[in-house]
Amino acid sequence: MLTYSFENRGSDSLYEHLYKQIKADIVSYRLAPDERLPSKRALSKHLNISTVTVESAYAQLLAEGYIYSVPKSGYFVSRLSSAAASAVKPEHLPTAGEGEEFFADFSGSYSEKEAFPFSVWARLMRETMSVSAEKLMVRSPSAGISELREAIAAHLRAFRGMEVRPEQIVVGAGTEYLYGLIIQLLGRERVYALEDPGYRKIGRIYEANRVPCAYIPMDEHGVDPAALGKSGANVLHISPSHHFPTGIVTPVSRRYELLSWACSAPGRYIIEDDYDSEFRLLGKPIPPLQSIDLMGKVIYINTFSKSLSSTIRISYMVLPTELMREYESRLSFYSCTVSNFDQYTLAAFIKGGYLEKHINRMRNHYRTRRDELIAAIRSQPHFARVRIKEEDAGLHFLLELQTSLSDSEISSRCRSAGLRISCLSEYYHTSPGDSRTLLINYSGLEAGHTEEAVDRLFSAIWP
Amino acid sequence: MLTYSFENRGSDSLYEHLYKQIKADIVSYRLAPDERLPSKRALSKHLNISTVTVESAYAQLLAEGYIYSVPKSGYFVSRLSSAAASAVKPEHLPTAGEGEEFFADFSGSYSEKEAFPFSVWARLMRETMSVSAEKLMVRSPSAGISELREAIAAHLRAFRGMEVRPEQIVVGAGTEYLYGLIIQLLGRERVYALEDPGYRKIGRIYEANRVPCAYIPMDEHGVDPAALGKSGANVLHISPSHHFPTGIVTPVSRRYELLSWACSAPGRYIIEDDYDSEFRLLGKPIPPLQSIDLMGKVIYINTFSKSLSSTIRISYMVLPTELMREYESRLSFYSCTVSNFDQYTLAAFIKGGYLEKHINRMRNHYRTRRDELIAAIRSQPHFARVRIKEEDAGLHFLLELQTSLSDSEISSRCRSAGLRISCLSEYYHTSPGDSRTLLINYSGLEAGHTEEAVDRLFSAIWP
Repeated sequence: MLTYSFENRGSDSLYEHLYKQIKADIVSYRLAPDERLPSKRALSKHLNISTVTVESAYAQLLAEGYIYSVPKSGYFVSRLSSAAASAVKPEHLPTAGEGEEFFADFSGSYSEKEAFPFSVWARLMRETMSVSAEKLMVRSPSAGISELREAIAAHLRAFRGMEVRPEQIVVGAGTEYLYGLIIQLLGRERVYALEDPGYRKIGRIYEANRVPCAYIPMDEHGVDPAALGKSGANVLHISPSHHFPTGIVTPVSRRYELLSWACSAPGRYIIEDDYDSEFRLLGKPIPPLQSIDLMGKVIYINTFSKSLSSTIRISYMVLPTELMREYESRLSFYSCTVSNFDQYTLAAFIKGGYLEKHINRMRNHYRTRRDELIAAIRSQPHFARVRIKEEDAGLHFLLELQTSLSDSEISSRCRSAGLRISCLSEYYHTSPGDSRTLLINYSGLEAGHTEEAVDRLFSAIWP
Repeated sequence: MLTYSFENRGSDSLYEHLYKQIKADIVSYRLAPDERLPSKRALSKHLNISTVTVESAYAQLLAEGYIYSVPKSGYFVSRLSSAAASAVKPEHLPTAGEGEEFFADFSGSYSEKEAFPFSVWARLMRETMSVSAEKLMVRSPSAGISELREAIAAHLRAFRGMEVRPEQIVVGAGTEYLYGLIIQLLGRERVYALEDPGYRKIGRIYEANRVPCAYIPMDEHGVDPAALGKSGANVLHISPSHHFPTGIVTPVSRRYELLSWACSAPGRYIIEDDYDSEFRLLGKPIPPLQSIDLMGKVIYINTFSKSLSSTIRISYMVLPTELMREYESRLSFYSCTVSNFDQYTLAAFIKGGYLEKHINRMRNHYRTRRDELIAAIRSQPHFARVRIKEEDAGLHFLLELQTSLSDSEISSRCRSAGLRISCLSEYYHTSPGDSRTLLINYSGLEAGHTEEAVDRLFSAIWP
């Protein structure tokens, strides 16, 4: 009969201790495969413990497959695979490097820590938790809660002049996630056309999803329609309100041309990525493609991570009616990826007018930042050797340099001067060679660093 | 010269009013394509407004593409496409129906409203906002903040006996999102094997991502290895700790057999979906496949949406070292889909011991619920005609009925009796015919409804 001591069992319960001892005997083959275990009653008598204890231990062993039961016959040791190997600890993984420290960062990769309306957000979150506790526990529809979708529709009407019904809106945890949904919605048989140059992450997402991509060259009005026509693409992904990185705003005539492309063959769509339209610094924002699309060809996509904070992961897309039907029938089994907390808080934030205030405040803030920066550039002795381009549209502009340095020389000099900066040429898929043009994103520039940063930049190029 | 009245301009600024009037003239062809606009100075004089006003209006028109500029020559009207059509409002979309009202819901699709530790969560969220304000604004690494990944690793050690490094963990907004990442990580060339019967959503996700699926039949220990071997699959997606819907717990010997399958050809992986392991009601939870995998073949995946609340969208996966390297190099450009607020709050929730308390409390709660339900079933006069199966593992069990009714007759009778219920046969991909077995999920059963619900069920089947 199995005999175990219950003395040194530490904090284990009797049953746990028994379970572990029997298991150890099975794993070490002290108990042979198919050996019959004593009956619960016999073992409990033998070890002077209760039947319940033995029963629990056997039940655990049974559930884990170490033993099996034969009705009216009892419990037997399972036949384990001989693959039991010694524990090998996987080696330590390198954690992602935090990168260098820079005096000034023109890459736009830092968020504005002071800018986020933290206290308002916190207050609304508290209110949401106390007022909407009941609602918070109800599962969100796949496309998002109706309060938020209504608030977004109202925001789009006020800020972008868009007539959108809340039922056309799909909320998700970031535009990157929504791109994935779009690929599932439109299918992988299509060729996706991307801007060249363009925001590199978009290409990476399509490639990670293994859909065929075509890179379309840009002229001064945006994507080149002739090249688009020849590309064999079915889906065009563009940011016509403010192209990244060139800053180009696609004019209305070109927009109609692109819509005409979309309508001239079945199954064509345009994904309009309106990522920083709120931050147009001169005049009103430009009406989106979506609002002149009458054939249901445009998927409009935008994010609150840009206008609020990158730590808020809420984006949304506006689907044409037909695609929304398709979404409802094929993809609405997906749960919404944004937590109810965040959804209700954002809805209250928009409805309370805080988003509008925030955007206005940020626009002023960025305008000041930009004006300071341009003034600093203008006051440089070598000012005549640079040209500032596309400074009105977003949070960055281009700086063309008259220099014989190559782009990689420019980059390495900037880096040595403590400046994080990128060259336009880095954003091309098919290499355009040296453009001698810098991308100046001022959203992450720290207050008080402007003049010295510009001094360092010019001294790096013209020492 | 263009002549406009500035009288009825409502709340518009002078420049906005001017911009709108000129735009209206362009769209209506009162201004012809390529027509030259008056110079800013001339127009400002003519209309008796400031040059700045005209300048702003022209700049807006220019940015929107309604006019174009020719250096040293002036501004001209753009040639618009003739596609300007009348505004067609898309018709109203049906919103997703809220479904019927049921007296009792055995489908498990409702969340436990009272159960979520709301006040603790709210307090931790407030603390997070006041203590970690600075950190909240720093962008999360792609795989999640280290505080949360450390907390999850500690939780897995305590609750599942798993030795996992925080660097192996990837946090995401729901398991469904993580499945999508896994597909991108492992690739679409592979065949994904799924349990049949199984949780239908998993198949839908793979199919929505257009990856080939093989449905593998189950025997009483889980997925059938012989059928798996013949299927041509490279990736196996299973829930060995508690299969849905059958409740089968895959024994250790079968687990080794499946690991042996994974090791017997290159590029094979097992996705271990451990969705409700916390709620095993008898004994300790069963050690996961991941902890006996020494070859880096198992991707472990689990969620807090089940153990906490479906409104919290936080899940995670544990990748083998090699796949984590692959993730870092190929997919870490993705932003984390969970907001920092939720990540820091959950980290504090786990570290403070609240998750453990919550799970214990819920386990007791579910045990009581289950015992009540089983007692109610046992007290039925027709009790001898049913058999309860697999009642220890999760939040549901199976109820086999001795009846000549078909599954669809059973379903429709239950529905008429106000019961939301599903049959095991609904979860098969390849039809197994009528199983006359009900799935009884008691997680959504309202307190006090148990006895009447059981009465209704039995009277529906045996009137």
